[in-house]
Formats: sequence, C-alpha cells, structure tokens
Amino acid sequence: MPALDPAQPALGPRIDGQRLWASLMALAEIGATPKGGVCRLALSELDRQARDLFMHWARDAGCSVRVDAIGNLFARREGTHPHLPAVATGSHIDTQPTGGKFDGNYGVLAGLEVLRTLNDQGLRTRAALEVCVWTNEEGSRFVPVMMGSGVYAGAFTLGHALAATDRDGTSVGQALAAIGYAGSAPASVADGAPRFGAYFEAHIEQGPVLEDAGDTIGVVTGALGQRWYDVVVTGLEAHAGPTPMDLRRDALQAALPLMQAVDSIARAEAPHARGTVGWVQVFPNSRNTIPGRVSFTVDFRHTDEAGLARMEAALHAAIAQVQAAGRVDVALTPVVHFPPAPFDPALVAAVRAAAQHHGWPHRDIVSGAGHDAVYVARTAPAAMIFVPCKDGISHNEVEDARAEHLAAGCQVLLDAMLAQAGVAGPPR
Amino acid sequence: MPALDPAQPALGPRIDGQRLWASLMALAEIGATPKGGVCRLALSELDRQARDLFMHWARDAGCSVRVDAIGNLFARREGTHPHLPAVATGSHIDTQPTGGKFDGNYGVLAGLEVLRTLNDQGLRTRAALEVCVWTNEEGSRFVPVMMGSGVYAGAFTLGHALAATDRDGTSVGQALAAIGYAGSAPASVADGAPRFGAYFEAHIEQGPVLEDAGDTIGVVTGALGQRWYDVVVTGLEAHAGPTPMDLRRDALQAALPLMQAVDSIARAEAPHARGTVGWVQVFPNSRNTIPGRVSFTVDFRHTDEAGLARMEAALHAAIAQVQAAGRVDVALTPVVHFPPAPFDPALVAAVRAAAQHHGWPHRDIVSGAGHDAVYVARTAPAAMIFVPCKDGISHNEVEDARAEHLAAGCQVLLDAMLAQAGVAGPPR
Repeated sequence: MPALDPAQPALGPRIDGQRLWASLMALAEIGATPKGGVCRLALSELDRQARDLFMHWARDAGCSVRVDAIGNLFARREGTHPHLPAVATGSHIDTQPTGGKFDGNYGVLAGLEVLRTLNDQGLRTRAALEVCVWTNEEGSRFVPVMMGSGVYAGAFTLGHALAATDRDGTSVGQALAAIGYAGSAPASVADGAPRFGAYFEAHIEQGPVLEDAGDTIGVVTGALGQRWYDVVVTGLEAHAGPTPMDLRRDALQAALPLMQAVDSIARAEAPHARGTVGWVQVFPNSRNTIPGRVSFTVDFRHTDEAGLARMEAALHAAIAQVQAAGRVDVALTPVVHFPPAPFDPALVAAVRAAAQHHGWPHRDIVSGAGHDAVYVARTAPAAMIFVPCKDGISHNEVEDARAEHLAAGCQVLLDAMLAQAGVAGPPR
Repeated sequence: MPALDPAQPALGPRIDGQRLWASLMALAEIGATPKGGVCRLALSELDRQARDLFMHWARDAGCSVRVDAIGNLFARREGTHPHLPAVATGSHIDTQPTGGKFDGNYGVLAGLEVLRTLNDQGLRTRAALEVCVWTNEEGSRFVPVMMGSGVYAGAFTLGHALAATDRDGTSVGQALAAIGYAGSAPASVADGAPRFGAYFEAHIEQGPVLEDAGDTIGVVTGALGQRWYDVVVTGLEAHAGPTPMDLRRDALQAALPLMQAVDSIARAEAPHARGTVGWVQVFPNSRNTIPGRVSFTVDFRHTDEAGLARMEAALHAAIAQVQAAGRVDVALTPVVHFPPAPFDPALVAAVRAAAQHHGWPHRDIVSGAGHDAVYVARTAPAAMIFVPCKDGISHNEVEDARAEHLAAGCQVLLDAMLAQAGVAGPPR
C-alpha cells in the first residue's frame, strides 16, 4: 500500500471539524445529564437510540452496516480492491453512569467523519474502510468490559459474554434482543468474522499528560497491563455500643490498610503504575452496627508484566499482615488480567508521521486505560491516536475537549487510514 | 410502697421460664431468616404481624391495650389504686436487617411473662402495670432511632417523627397507616400521655462483659453518651487508568485515615469509649473510576460528656489534617447527641436487691447501647436489667442467649416491679 506522501500536504483531503463537533453534540443528547455529561449504559434503551442514530448516519454516508452476534456494528465503505482486508477504525458509544460526551463517542464519530470527508472529495480507497461500534466497552452494567472487541478477538467466548447478567439479572443476550441488536454476523474471528488489514482508534487521552505538555496529538505506543481483583474481608458484625474496642472483629477497620496499600503500592512504582479502589460495599451497612463484611475492588496497572507481578506480591504481603492479626479473614480473587499491549510499530509510525506532516506538537504516550484497540491488536496491526481532554478528566460528567484538538486527531486518523488503505485514484 | 421482703423469698411469685422461651421463639418466627436471625424492620408488614401477635397475647392476659399516635403499644393490667401512676416495663419488637431473636423482643416478652405470672398467682398490684412496645427503636429503616420513646419523652416532636422517610420515600405516618397502627392516644407526655411511677427494661447485654465475668445479672447504672455524625469527603472522580497517582483527588483514599481515626480515637479513651464507622457509600462506585465522593457515618460513645467532647475535637483535628493536604473537601455534620444517662438510684438498687435476693451473680454495668429506657428516664425514674448473650454478639443473626439467664432477668424484673407497684393483698 502506498505511504502518505509528506511532499504533497496541500493535496490531502481535510476533515470538517465543525461537522465532527456537531455530530458529537447530537449524539451526546441521547442520555444527556443535567450536569452536561452522558449516562448511556450498554444495551439500554438509550444505547439503542444512539445505535439507531449511528446506523442512520452510516447509511446516509453510503455505507452498508453489519451487525454481529454480540451487537458490534461495522459500517463499511467499499474499496476498489475487494480482496484487500478492510482498514478499520472505531470505538464505543456506551458510557459510564456519570460519563462524558467524548469517551468512545469521539472514536466512532471521527471514523464517520473520515468516511464523510472521502465522500465529499469523491475519493475511493483501494482497501475498504470500516467504522466499528464495539458493544459494552465500559463494563459498568455488564462484566467483562470491552465485551464486543473481546469476543471479536477471542479473549472470551460469545456464549460467556451473552450469559453475563446485570444487577437486575438481565443477561446480555436478553438485552441485545430487547433493543433489536442481536445480529447474525459471526462475532469472533475464530468463527469467521473478517480480520482487518489495520485498525486505528482515536480517543481522548482521559489523563492530563498532553494538556500539561501543550501537545495536540498523543502517538500511543501501547497500553498499560492491568490486573483486577475482588477482595472480601470477613469479620463479625456486632452492636456498635456494647462491644468494647479490643473485642471487635471489625471488617471495615481491617480493610482500611488494604485499601491504603492499593494506593501506596502503585505510588512505589510511579510513574509507571496505577492502583485504584473504585468500588466498596459494607455489610450490613448500618450506622450502629460494626461491619461484618467488606468487599472492594482492586485495579492495578503497569507498563510491564514484571511490575504487575511485584504489585500483586505486595498486595499479598499486605493481606498476610492483616490475616496474621487473626481478627478477620481476607479472600483475594483475580478478576481480569490484561498483559501490557505494545501497538504495531508501522502503524504507530504512520500516526507520528501524520502529526509531523501537519506540524502539530505531539509526543509518544502509553495508554493507561484499556481500549477496544487493545483487543483488536491481537488480531491485526493496530494503533491509537490521543487528543487532550480538559484537566485530564474522564469518566465524569464534566469531561471536555477542544474542537480543534478533536479535529486534529480526526485529521491524523484520516491520513493514517488513507496511508494504509491506499487511494485508488485522483478525485473524480 | 412496700419493699421486697428478703426474709420471705419462698413466698414471692416465680416466673415461668419455659413459657417465656416459647413466646420468644414464637415471635422470632415472624421475619425469621435462614441463618436463625430475624429481619423485621420497623412498620413493615412483618412488624404488623408481630404487633398483632403481641396484641393477641396481651388481651389473652386480660389487658387493655392503648395505641398512641406514633404507634407505641401499652398493654395495661389495672391495679387496685387507680390514682397511682403505672409501673411499666417494655422494649421494642422491630429488628436490624440482620438482627437476632432477643434484642428488644426479650424486654417486651419478659414484661408479658410478669403479667402472666401475676395472673397465675391471682396477685393484684396497688399500682397498675403496663408493658410497652416502643415504635422503631432500631432506626434501620427510619431515623431518628428510638423513635417511639423519643416522641413519648419529648426528645423530638410527633410531627418530626411522622415525616421521617425511608429510602423509598415512604414516611412513618404512611407506614403506620398502612399497617393499621396509627393510634389515637397522645404520644408525648407533653400532650398528656401518662407518666409512669417507675420504668424498668430488661435486655440482653449486647456485649461480652457479663459472659466473660460469669455473671447472670447486669445491674445497669446508666447509659453511655453518644454523638453521631455524617461525614462527606469530596474529591474528583476520574478514569482509574490514565490518571497518574500524583494528580488524583481520590475521595476514598482521603477518607481512609479519617475512618481509621474514628477507631483509634475511641481506643485512646478505652475502656470508656467506642468509635464505629458502620455505613459507607462510595460514589460513583465503579470499579475503574477514582471515587469522587465518599460518605460515611461516625458513632462515638463515652461514659462522660467531657470524653465525648475530646473525641469530637480529635475528629476535627484529623479532618483538618486531611483538608490541609488540599486534595479534597470534608464536611462533618452532627446527627444525634445523647448525653450520658445515669439511671434512678432507687430503682437501680431495687434491681440489685432482687439479684442478691436470689443469689445470682451480678455486677454493676453501663449500657453501651441506647435503649428506650434512656428516653423514658427523662420522664420517670428508670432502670435496666441486663442478661448475658452468647459471645456478646447482637445486631447479628447468630445472636443467642441462655433460657436460664433470660428467666433470671425476668424474675428480677418481676421482683423489682412488684416492689415498686406494691402487692394489694395475699393470693386469692
């Protein structure tokens, strides 16, 4: 495939930043919260409305749309050489319960803007282009997270994903059927879902690094590895008044140093690591009862596998110390393990070249979050493009990003995709 | 009124421990949990069933039953001297969500057993006897706790109590009407509810002191003072992956040392104090989101008011230290303040004398928990009788007590009530 020609910058097609912004704002109205964010949980009625809008836009752009058995959507713009694997991009349109307008949505709509721009210019590509909407990336309603891309890449089976239930007992399979997005196309590459020739994903950084450095484009070289755990501390609930301090088996007080350890273990590995307790449940959670059981989650991330192993060992040591006091039992259950995922060097170079080409300040960066691209990278060459977001804030209703940064990232996406797909001929 | 005559132990009426136990087990079937406990929240359908059973038993015992405007029940056995104020006893029959068979229920059914014993013996008392069932002592569903006795004693108004709502938005007034226990009798002594000549309350200790010492009877000299607070720590929620450790405003990590301080502040005042965090809520409580807000409760108890003031000052200091780091805001709201409550010396002496009379090992003890008797003590002479419970455990489904201890406490109650009410004449 022909490489992007940096000697002809003026000739390349230019995306429409205002149209991209308008699409983002239109999609953000579905599930809009009073504080300016979005609450659009995976496979909810609001997710259906957002999917319907994407389908409408994709067909308006002349695409066919494929829906697979886990509800992933693939809007396809045919190329001139049908035997070439498609060059794809995409992300997700489900959100956190208190999420923002840009997380995921930007990657999908930047892809759509690439297709619209090529339509405007009458440009055909050699390889087909596809824009993917991956099901349930956030994992807020259904676990595992990154479900659609995970099934696609074979990280877990379609049956496992369809059987997952939310807290009301509704399964993914039931929810897909209820919103009309239980498709018939094979969902996994193992079952015949087509592999891509290349996959790009544009995303807000969701961290403060680019903004602090004054950079416009993050050239993402890979993603942090992640290990997630569930911890349950079991003591004995008792009446808060008559039980002397020295006779208590208070599960919460025993859990506190473990929750602190999650943070301090990550700080000891700084700046390469993260450690977060995001979810806590106290039982029976009554004001005047000593807690008998406390459950909480651990989210460890690190640039390399050895670092993750050190963090896990340190957590085991902290637990052993609490256990040794003999007042409570502690159970640690691994939930998820994503190894660190380096991206494809040639695609990373294509992203970097496009940023250089336009003279936008850029830097190499590692993704702290998981993304659908991390799974897709198991099946095809992949890379990501980051743009700054305000104060580095994401998974929050105040999540914000600047239109010119979003447009720049979209332009880099277009250039990198064209470089991979190849332009079939001059504008008609 | 005549005092109990220790020279004639054999002549006093004896309660029926087996009947008391059978009544406890029958009442415990209403709301019984698979683990052997009881879940019978205040003013629920199960509470209605339990109240109906008490009404049935009280009328069978020849009592009239008065229902007041906050749903308190008063089963009355008339005396020979109508001008004398009634000598009363009682407790509550609502439970914690994972409560036991004895907390509260024992005090009510011990009172009923006193009346049944007097019926068996054909004994009349000079003053009338009353057995009280106080509404919503536990406070698990509706705050404030000890609601029925609190309204009775004027700790807060009837209107305030009736307007309190549970987490579903149902008010106390609505719940009382729904179960048919919105009575017409005045609820507060300020509105004309009759004051008692004396009030006793028998209760399981809910702590380990009597069991450890091998004592059968706790002569309760008073109750610990209590100060309760709500604490809200506000940081900023953000995505757990891309946000470096040193740029976080993690509300949970900031809250952890405060929760630890609640425990350590109480230990510094040992053995006179208690400090408990029983309830915690994390927002948004998502596995991969840094918590933006954490709310938790503080329950401080101490034998004296100066100690409570020291504990509050220490908590303020801990909060100031967290605030000084500048990453989060902390708000502390006082919720409840019960001053330490010494009981009536003459009634305490009557309880001690009854235990001595029967030769049962006993000791003076301070109640760590709040009880309806603490409020009633604001309106009349009051005292309490404790009996051991297994491993000191209460507010727990495994709560247990021995039949012979329960019988001994009930016998002390009978003796002490008779001493106050006076026997009208020899058995008929």
